Amino acid sequence: MSDTTKLLDFLQQRVPADSSHKELCTSVLPNLVDAIADIARVLRASSAVSAVGTANAFGDDQLNVDVLSEEAVRKALDSCSAVVTASSEEDPVEKPTGCRPEWPPAHAEDDGAQEIYTVAFDPLDGSSIIAPNWSVGTILGVWRGASALHQSPKQRQVAAVLGVYGPRTTAVVALRIPGTSPLCFEVAVGEQGADDSVVVRPDVQFAEAPFKTRYFAPANLRAAAEDENYMKLVTHYIQSKYTLRYSGGLVPDVVHALVKGHGVYVSPVTGASKAKLRRLYELFPLALIVECAGGKAIDPATGADILEHPSKDTDERAGLVCGTAEEVEFVKKSMLG
Amino acid sequence: MSDTTKLLDFLQQRVPADSSHKELCTSVLPNLVDAIADIARVLRASSAVSAVGTANAFGDDQLNVDVLSEEAVRKALDSCSAVVTASSEEDPVEKPTGCRPEWPPAHAEDDGAQEIYTVAFDPLDGSSIIAPNWSVGTILGVWRGASALHQSPKQRQVAAVLGVYGPRTTAVVALRIPGTSPLCFEVAVGEQGADDSVVVRPDVQFAEAPFKTRYFAPANLRAAAEDENYMKLVTHYIQSKYTLRYSGGLVPDVVHALVKGHGVYVSPVTGASKAKLRRLYELFPLALIVECAGGKAIDPATGADILEHPSKDTDERAGLVCGTAEEVEFVKKSMLG
Repeated sequence: MSDTTKLLDFLQQRVPADSSHKELCTSVLPNLVDAIADIARVLRASSAVSAVGTANAFGDDQLNVDVLSEEAVRKALDSCSAVVTASSEEDPVEKPTGCRPEWPPAHAEDDGAQEIYTVAFDPLDGSSIIAPNWSVGTILGVWRGASALHQSPKQRQVAAVLGVYGPRTTAVVALRIPGTSPLCFEVAVGEQGADDSVVVRPDVQFAEAPFKTRYFAPANLRAAAEDENYMKLVTHYIQSKYTLRYSGGLVPDVVHALVKGHGVYVSPVTGASKAKLRRLYELFPLALIVECAGGKAIDPATGADILEHPSKDTDERAGLVCGTAEEVEFVKKSMLG
Repeated sequence: MSDTTKLLDFLQQRVPADSSHKELCTSVLPNLVDAIADIARVLRASSAVSAVGTANAFGDDQLNVDVLSEEAVRKALDSCSAVVTASSEEDPVEKPTGCRPEWPPAHAEDDGAQEIYTVAFDPLDGSSIIAPNWSVGTILGVWRGASALHQSPKQRQVAAVLGVYGPRTTAVVALRIPGTSPLCFEVAVGEQGADDSVVVRPDVQFAEAPFKTRYFAPANLRAAAEDENYMKLVTHYIQSKYTLRYSGGLVPDVVHALVKGHGVYVSPVTGASKAKLRRLYELFPLALIVECAGGKAIDPATGADILEHPSKDTDERAGLVCGTAEEVEFVKKSMLG
């Protein structure tokens, strides 16, 4: 009924065969989609996890889901010879992958001639909403080169994938290969992974004004109790009759805006509330996705684009304002004056 | 690792064999859990549905998911000889079920001697959040007798089930059989339905004060733009540092409070915003679940318990305030003075 294209065909059509990023499309991205299908299976089978986060919590079950998700991504990366290193929120040290244990080889130089990547990821985001069975996600950033540290996110992070585990399994993928047009598309992830995945929306883009419905997602809303600017902003959204959608899961909250074509996600940093989103594992991939969909993603503390500054270590954190460009500009003015 | 019990064993243990509600536990509830497993499968396979609710919406796909969910419940009911009639949000007329086409038989009298039920249900709630792949749900109410209309909800609605379709499939079940203690428990729904479902939390109850974290879910928040009391209430939650969780799906929002052990869901009716939740298909089953978990569910327009008044027709609507009892009392005072 809908004009869907197989993921593998879509990637082949959109990225020229002579591309310097061929392995990214024929190996890295398909393997990451395989990992998302694996994680979906892990979550579906984790019935005991429903007790997590409650008075009767089984801490071990929670750990188990996180560890199994981490393992699924690591296993997928071990099948990509172009991915030489990886690091994650669970194991935040850039290390050689399984198929490249000898990395770095003697005299290795990342001169761009070889197709070499590193992947920075958060295997399972949204632990607070796993117990009530709300949608959660995976965040993956793919960088050219062997390290994502001290590198220009704008230049070197060439792809990002958000996996969404809900009633079905979906993924939003962004590609920004230097010299080509940015792509952002949505995938229905099949049970088998990339092989039976289809592109259900080939061009995910934020809508242009006027907007039919305007959405807002105010993260860390407790901070508004002590931050006048944030309280004013939230009051503005209510008075202007924006529609509230806030799950508390970073991936579903941002994907909501992408799928609806409008939305603004606000996670401020205030005196009482510290920056808690990791730049490498959460903010950089999300920002690439949002930008490729025509939106904006900024650091609320400075107003700078999230992708403006490299990360010096794997633990750097910040807040986030992202979504429809004009909404993000409005927040910037409201919060920074 | 966790001490789970098979659903069928649990029901057998908790409801005495000589009970006058034996078929409810051996046939009706297991079949409803089968329907939830079927709907989960339908949603998982509905990849094209991701385009729904956007500028590129395929109206037919949406319809398809609703219709398939409706069919799954109807099919399940056709396997329960004790269920003589049913009606739903999709088809809101009480009609004989497939296995009782001859109903009502001549001289039929619902004198309580026979085990006879009707089921009132909303097969798929949360259409606005299907596109972004957020968790959605099914709402089922089981009534003693052949009709749910003009009947005391407190006395005659003996069971309710909420199905939650998220990363996994879960259900919250409440049973309030006259003369026995109310039950509320959570089920991890298996791929095959009731046969491989397990009870993961045998006693779902709202926590007692003091609360570790307090949650609020302000539905229809746009109404606060024109309703001073609602705006004051929301401001109170923010200033008191309640944690916001609001998906916009009635089932996941209420289940969040049940699973976390605290929460207040507020869907007010104001001058500008009409009552939109159907009493028969949404409010009655939710209220039974909340009450069996030790919470309260009231009509914000009157302050009366949702289960106080019978429904005269299948289209009666109201607002809803439900959750932790003392939170609901607070809203009642704030909104009604």
